[in-house]
Amino acid sequence: MTNQKLYHAHIEACVEAMNACNLSYVANLKEYNLEKLCECIRITRECAEICSFTAQSLSQGSQFAGEIAELCAKVCEACIAECAKHNNQHSRECIEACRHCVEMCKDLMVAA
Amino acid sequence: MTNQKLYHAHIEACVEAMNACNLSYVANLKEYNLEKLCECIRITRECAEICSFTAQSLSQGSQFAGEIAELCAKVCEACIAECAKHNNQHSRECIEACRHCVEMCKDLMVAA
Amino acid sequence: MTNQKLYHAHIEACVEAMNACNLSYVANLKEYNLEKLCECIRITRECAEICSFTAQSLSQGSQFAGEIAELCAKVCEACIAECAKHNNQHSRECIEACRHCVEMCKDLMVAA
Amino acid sequence: MTNQKLYHAHIEACVEAMNACNLSYVANLKEYNLEKLCECIRITRECAEICSFTAQSLSQGSQFAGEIAELCAKVCEACIAECAKHNNQHSRECIEACRHCVEMCKDLMVAA
Repeated sequence: MTNQKLYHAHIEACVEAMNACNLSYVANLKEYNLEKLCECIRITRECAEICSFTAQSLSQGSQFAGEIAELCAKVCEACIAECAKHNNQHSRECIEACRHCVEMCKDLMVAA
Repeated sequence: MTNQKLYHAHIEACVEAMNACNLSYVANLKEYNLEKLCECIRITRECAEICSFTAQSLSQGSQFAGEIAELCAKVCEACIAECAKHNNQHSRECIEACRHCVEMCKDLMVAA
Repeated sequence: MTNQKLYHAHIEACVEAMNACNLSYVANLKEYNLEKLCECIRITRECAEICSFTAQSLSQGSQFAGEIAELCAKVCEACIAECAKHNNQHSRECIEACRHCVEMCKDLMVAA
Repeated sequence: MTNQKLYHAHIEACVEAMNACNLSYVANLKEYNLEKLCECIRITRECAEICSFTAQSLSQGSQFAGEIAELCAKVCEACIAECAKHNNQHSRECIEACRHCVEMCKDLMVAA
């Protein structure tokens, strides 16, 4: 059991990525050209869920923090790659939040 | 704390509704005519999450089983109303699974 | 679909309550006198999950924000009542975070 | 995107493991000798959550099915190791359900 308070910045990064992913998800669902957005809709929604799950796990001081962070980083990277195909503000914000989350996850992977 | 084993059929109904909602969600994301499906995509995804949350809560013998079931029934009913607008097999299967889940939730609301 | 950005302070309150509940949960599991803590362990864990679920729902701009907030407030209140029986720092911090979360949830219940 | 219907038995195994973990969690919280059970309480609860998360991910046809299954198998194995220290019916049932879940997860890891 690790000190959960040490995870505060990591949890915050996960929550910010969750929020940015969800904002992008909802914004995409309002677009006309949905055919090109279906993969983006899918991955932002999944990424929001894994970020939330990671925050919850870190908040409990999970002994699997390293493994969960590795999974979260992988999903965030897939989300970044997909959002990079779309030239709009919410996708750029999603990329930025996910990048910060990846950094924080990699920090946990080293520490674990 | 209630007897969790009593909830077996209720948990199963929630999981079946989660599965049917997710199948419909993924099938809708593959369609061409996404403009008419965005609300259906949104509600099936949210319904899948609340069904899963309800199953987890019942499985833990939550003292809030009645309140959570009430919320789950409400979301399932909104999902049924939206799916009823779309004439295809996966929407019909989603409606059927959600209807059964509503019944099981109402059973819990009376019991709670 | 409501403006998710409006929910920023509410999401933050939910995440802070999740963290405080989880810190209390883990701290209680390290105590010797666990017989008196089992209800506290159970409710802090459940409260952490509903707070996280509420944050995720608000972050998606759920149309059920009011109902989910109502459930979250109820679980937080039960958590506060239980933590009030235990005279220690992590329980007091949990009470404080849950109280703020209840306030934010009630704000959503009025708005919904 | 893989065929979600292929995952039916895997989802069922995850849900059964979630249920067995939660039953063991609640049964342990009712015991007198909680000092020896705190690690078991913690891991059964965490295992129940990752099993539920895995079921939800498979049900959505996640492209990360293999990675999530790998994480789920690892947590189930830690849960089995802990439950094996406790000689009672609910721990034995938890071990059995988690073993089956590990098998199904390993099947996904090969397939992914």
